[in-house]
Parts: sequence; C-alpha cells; structure tokens
Amino acid sequence: MSVAQSKTDSAAIKHFSNEILLHGKGYDWLYQLTKSIGSRLAGSPQMVKAEQWGFNTMKTAGADTVFMQECKVPHWVRGGKDQAFIISGDKRISLNVLALGNSNGSGNKGVLANVIEVKNFDELENRRGEIKDKIVFYNCDFDESNINTFESYGQSVRYRGRGASRAAKYGAVGVIIRSMTHATDNNPHTGWMGYNDSFPKIPAVALGLKDVAVLHQYLSENKQIKLQLFTFGKMLPDTIGHNIVGEIKGTENKAEYITIGGHLDSWDIGEGAHDDGAGIAQTLEILRAFKALNYHPRHTIRFVLFANEENGTRGGHEYADQAAAHKEKHVFALESDAGGFTPRGFSITTDSLGWTKIEQWKKLLAPYGSSEFYPYGRGTDIELLYDSFKIPEADLIPDSQRYFDIHHCANDIFENVNKRELHMGAVNMAALIYLVDQYGL
Amino acid sequence: MSVAQSKTDSAAIKHFSNEILLHGKGYDWLYQLTKSIGSRLAGSPQMVKAEQWGFNTMKTAGADTVFMQECKVPHWVRGGKDQAFIISGDKRISLNVLALGNSNGSGNKGVLANVIEVKNFDELENRRGEIKDKIVFYNCDFDESNINTFESYGQSVRYRGRGASRAAKYGAVGVIIRSMTHATDNNPHTGWMGYNDSFPKIPAVALGLKDVAVLHQYLSENKQIKLQLFTFGKMLPDTIGHNIVGEIKGTENKAEYITIGGHLDSWDIGEGAHDDGAGIAQTLEILRAFKALNYHPRHTIRFVLFANEENGTRGGHEYADQAAAHKEKHVFALESDAGGFTPRGFSITTDSLGWTKIEQWKKLLAPYGSSEFYPYGRGTDIELLYDSFKIPEADLIPDSQRYFDIHHCANDIFENVNKRELHMGAVNMAALIYLVDQYGL
Repeated sequence: MSVAQSKTDSAAIKHFSNEILLHGKGYDWLYQLTKSIGSRLAGSPQMVKAEQWGFNTMKTAGADTVFMQECKVPHWVRGGKDQAFIISGDKRISLNVLALGNSNGSGNKGVLANVIEVKNFDELENRRGEIKDKIVFYNCDFDESNINTFESYGQSVRYRGRGASRAAKYGAVGVIIRSMTHATDNNPHTGWMGYNDSFPKIPAVALGLKDVAVLHQYLSENKQIKLQLFTFGKMLPDTIGHNIVGEIKGTENKAEYITIGGHLDSWDIGEGAHDDGAGIAQTLEILRAFKALNYHPRHTIRFVLFANEENGTRGGHEYADQAAAHKEKHVFALESDAGGFTPRGFSITTDSLGWTKIEQWKKLLAPYGSSEFYPYGRGTDIELLYDSFKIPEADLIPDSQRYFDIHHCANDIFENVNKRELHMGAVNMAALIYLVDQYGL
Repeated sequence: MSVAQSKTDSAAIKHFSNEILLHGKGYDWLYQLTKSIGSRLAGSPQMVKAEQWGFNTMKTAGADTVFMQECKVPHWVRGGKDQAFIISGDKRISLNVLALGNSNGSGNKGVLANVIEVKNFDELENRRGEIKDKIVFYNCDFDESNINTFESYGQSVRYRGRGASRAAKYGAVGVIIRSMTHATDNNPHTGWMGYNDSFPKIPAVALGLKDVAVLHQYLSENKQIKLQLFTFGKMLPDTIGHNIVGEIKGTENKAEYITIGGHLDSWDIGEGAHDDGAGIAQTLEILRAFKALNYHPRHTIRFVLFANEENGTRGGHEYADQAAAHKEKHVFALESDAGGFTPRGFSITTDSLGWTKIEQWKKLLAPYGSSEFYPYGRGTDIELLYDSFKIPEADLIPDSQRYFDIHHCANDIFENVNKRELHMGAVNMAALIYLVDQYGL
C-alpha cells in the first residue's frame, strides 16, 4: 500500500467513523428490536415480528434489494415457570433456575431426588456408581483467571451442552448446572443443550451463582437433602423461519459477494440486546452508513440477519446451501456475535498472504480501537459458508469482560448496551469491510 | 531483556494476575467506600470517614507502615437543591440542573433573566453587546466523533471552568452549561469551576442533555422566554484533610520511592465509584496482592490515597512538597483516575531510553489488555511530583467510551463498576509497577 493510498484509506475510514458516531441509527434500531419486539426465539411469534421488522429496516437503511431466505427452524418452548427447591427437613428453599434450551420438562409432577455434586466429568465418571436416581449438580468452574472470558466459556460449556445425557447414562433423573458466568448477581443463564438419544431425556436447569453457593452449602452440611425441580420445556414440530438479506450491488464484481451479519433470533429471556441485537444493529448501521456516504463497493455486499443461531443454526446452513446451489462466488464474510461492547479487534481466518495485508491495515484500524488480531475467526452463522467455500472470514472481537454477565440471561436488555460502544463496533467492521472490498483478503 | 528473563517476568505477571482476578478484594473495598461512606467532597464529614476507612484498609491490605499527611483543603458546600425553570408565558418548565463545584449560589431570591444561547467563546465575544443582564447558555459541543472521549472533554471543559467569569465580564447574571457528556440520559454533570476575581461571581449550573434540547427548542421559538435559577453554593473557610500513605519497604533501594495512587475525594453527588473509587480500590488491591504473594520490591512502594483532587489538588501539592522538604528520591509514579473500565494501556512520560524499555515490555503487558501506549502521562495528583523531580510517570488508560456517561453525575455509583474490569486495571498497574521496580524506567 503506497503512502498516498494509505492516506485515502485513512480518510475513507474517518468518513465512515464520523457518519456512524455522529448520525448512527443502530442504537435506535436496537431500541425498536428489544423494546417493541423483545426476545425472539426461533418459532416464537416474536421471531415472525422480528423478521418483518428486519425486512422493513433493511429498506429504511437503504438496501438496493431485500429478500428473505426461508428455512425450517426448531420450535422449542419453555412452557412454564421453571422452579427448584431445596428440601431440607421441614425447610423448602427456592432457587433461581432456568431450564436449558431444548431440554424436556419434568411436567407438573416435578422431579424429587437426592443430589450429587460433581466438579467435572472426571468426577462424574469416577463416581458413576452413585449417580442412579439422583439429580447431578455440575458445580463446574468458570475460570476467572482467563483474560479472554470466551476461553472460560469454551472450557465449561460442555457441561451445559452434554451434561444431561452424560448423567442420564448412569441413571440420573435430572441435572442442575452452575451458570456459565462470573457475574456477581444471581441470574441463571440458559443456552443450548442436546440430548443423546440413547439415554433418558432428563430435565436440565442452570443455577445462578449465589444459589450455587447456597446449594453447595446445604450439601456440605447434609448430603441427604433433596432437590425438587419443575420444568416444562418441550420441542414442537419444526416451523418456518427466514434469513433477511439486503444487498448493495457491486460496481465491478457484482457477482462476487462479501457478507456481513449477525443473528436475529435470541433466547426467550431478556431482550437479546447484546446477543445478538448488537450484531443486527451494527449490520443495519453499516448498510445505512455506506448508502448515506454514497459508497459504491466493488463487490456486492450482503447484509444478513441470520435465523436461528441459538438452538439450530438453520439460518447459517440455509445461507451456505443457497450459495452453493446457485454457485455464487463468495470472497469474504464477517460476523458480529460477541456483544455490543467496545471493539478490541478481530479474529480472522485467512492465509499468510491475507495476514500480510492485515499487518498493513493495522495502523488504519488502531485509531478506532482494533489492536488485537487473532487467528481463526468464523462466527457460527458464517462457519457453514467457510465449510463450503474456504473463504477468508472474520469475527468482530469486542471487549469480553462483561459479556458473560449478560449472556443468555434476564440481564441481556437494551439498558446494558452503550450507544458509543455499539456504534464503535460498526465503525471497525465498516473499516474492515471497506479494506477487503478495495484490496481483497 | 533475555528470553529467560522475559519468561520469569511473564510468570511473575501471571501470578499477580491470578491473585487479583481470583482473590481480589478491590471490588469489595469499593463497595464499602461507596455504600458505607458514599460521596466524599473535601471538607465534608464523609471525607473524614473515608480517610479513617482508607487508613484502616491500608493496614488490612498489609502495608508495612501507614501514615497520614495533613493538608489544608477547600470546603465548598452545595447548600441546597439546585433548581432551574423556563418561564414562558404562563408556563414554568422545570429543568434538571446541578450547580458547578466552587460556584456561588443565587440564594433564595434566585436569578430571573432572559437567556442568550452561544455555541462557544467566539460567539460570546462577537455578541458581547447582548450579554448584559442575561443568563448565558453555553450550548457547547462535546465532539462525539473523537474516539478518545477525553479529547472531547479537553476541548469543552473550559466552558465549565471559565465560562461564568467570561460571561460576567460582559454583565451576565448567570450561566447554564451543556454538561460535559454524550450520555443518552438527562443527568447534569458538575465539576470544577473557578472565578476571575475581577468580575461578579455569578451562579453557574450544568444542564442534562435532554433538557439542553428542551431549552434550545424554547429559545428557537421565542427568544423572550426567561430562565429562573436557584443555587446555594458557598465556599467555607479551608479545613483539614489528609493523604493516606501506605508503604511496602524496599529490599535494595529502601530510600527510593515508587508511588501508586488515586484520589480519595469525589464530587458530592453519586458515590464517586469510578471517579475515583476505582483508583482507590486498585491501589489498595495491588498492595494486598503484593503482600499476599510475598513480593519483596527493590524500591519502597508508596500506595497513596490523595486528598482533594476534585476542587483543589491540595493532596497532590502536599505530597510533592513533603517529598521535596525531606529530599526524598522518587523514581516513578503511576495514577489511576480515568475510571474502573477495562484497561487498554498507559499514558507515559519518559525519555527515549524509557520508551525502549516500554517497547520490550509491550509483549508482557498485551496479554492483559494493555496494547495502547501514549506519550505524556501525569495524572493530576502526581503531576506536582513531576514538576519537582522530573521523574517518569504514567496513567492507567481504561476504555473511555462510558466514562463521560458517569463522570461527576448521579450515575457514578458502585453498580456501574464491573468487578472484572476494575480488577483488570489493577492487574495491568501491578505488572507495570513490577517491571519498573525490577528494571527502572
């Protein structure tokens, strides 16, 4: 990159930044999505409203064309108010629990059983003779010494995902899992779980951290206490959902696609503000800013609001399948699905030539907060596109310190998103998209 | 730095990080300071409580010695509930205002006058003939296009600091100032102001941003509306305050000092949680972690809770004066006074040899979030020490996006501080102090 070119790029990025920070609508759109529609799990009535809203807002933002991609989505419902009680002698102590997504309910009869507390799967295996007819309490660590909180999540999330069936294999009648968080409050955090069809599909709930301490204390004092669980989850037949796709047509390589996106669905509690209302708002905002500034991209840019990331990734599959079926040429994809916090950089999947370009771009991105670059970036919704096309991909990396305070819990609401931080994410994404559009990756 | 040495340093920093992130007490101490004591302006009864608390907590944290440095501090009191009303025909519209710190009150009679809105001092000068007997409304921009929000603050804070006397010079009877913020709420933000003794000391208030829009709209429709102000501030005689100083004695250079600190005082609204409870909590936490890990520093490390940063800097003066009077040898000072948000790096005042060292240390600090290094770091409390000794100094640079949402307003409360972000600041400060203690700067 010549000095002159670098100056031009620097000026272009400053234009995007000023447009987004001074005139951005992303925050207002996030307000609409979270407050007028709210949570929007696949299959819910709010999913349908969110799709219509996304379609309309894509037009408002100025897309040249907008279309929907239909796909089958799973339809899980919570079905009632999750409850859990410690039964200790005459005492009945209520715990704040939330059934895991996709889990089967206990129904009105509930489950009543003794509890066995284990730290991890190794302990579960070592004590497999003690599991039968008990509720397994996975008091699994969420390692607070990791600077990147996603590492802690990566280390612990298997207890949420696979803990139920691993315990059911040895005769457990339910599981209760320490929430995947280091929050100082007591909110339980839900999230994806999957059953192994070989074993009974037992109820599974997450517990907030203060109540983890309560349950642990009761068990320390008396291993004979019982736990009673009531959950009502059930999986209904698949229903219809949609990806919402807006485009700005390319001027030179009209049939080559750059994809930017986030996912439109959310879990059924809170408002899905950070996860992933933020990614949706940023995607729409970048579209708006490009159009407002009359930016004519070389490639066609696709702005995608993906369906059903949380409990099926069916939207991501559909997008990749359609791309393959139509023999589309894709050159790059970028996702924002790690919260609307201040950006710190990007995770990027590319080859060594690509990294050479990234090295040159670092000085252009650093003034906007992106100074951390990690290998391997393929967000859940764009990973399928990678699997088909092996194109370079990237994920926005926002500051991760607060993310697991709000992830999949009642605290993931609009009020916990900061306008500047949200818009700064859009600025950095717009800058990277611009550079890839101009120079490839 | 050899590879072996770098490995040793990397391991030492990881120990500090684990100790602080897994066992840190800084967040609990911040809770005590904000919730048991609350706001603590110089001269207030809470200042005295905070000093005693700081002295005791320094001992709890494990200081080898703790002492107080007495100094005179100003004693400004708000004196009552600040109020402002737009008087438009029969209507009386209440505005959310807060008198600026150090300002004189209108008293019960209040001030009632027409309003002249100006954007900046240039406009004030151009329209100086229209100022007499009016209230000047400084609707000064807080530039949202700056990535570093402190730049916007630096550009606008003169209206708060000097706007009253600049207007009084031309006969204004009061000033009302757009708060130094880009917050989406309506909180007014107070802060330091100073009068020029040559002109009448007129009342001065800050206005929240929603009410800025209301007042601007009324003025657009009718320049003849009046504004009524009631404020009650007054400056009482100086009183006695204290710096609280704890030490860990050096093993090799006992008579050479490294200083770490923040300021114990805060404005009288909110709880001074970020400003600067965070710096206090981090200072105490680093002391605790060093002692818990049995770190024996080469130099004597001073942990200082400075008095009266907000409206006098008398604590910083006293500390520098004492150092000069006792012919102390100081080698480095580090302050945290920019909020308890995720750290991004440091501002550093040092020479080219110092910067060579910083270059070597970057790879040691980056894993903990410090990747931004700026020239010129001398926090307000340690700047006086620099003036006397010309030693290297540094300021912690936390993420600045949210800072002016909470700065000097009712929102600066414990609930808006995140435990991990606060402790991460302490980790990065501890790492820098360790490196300077080992290798000098």
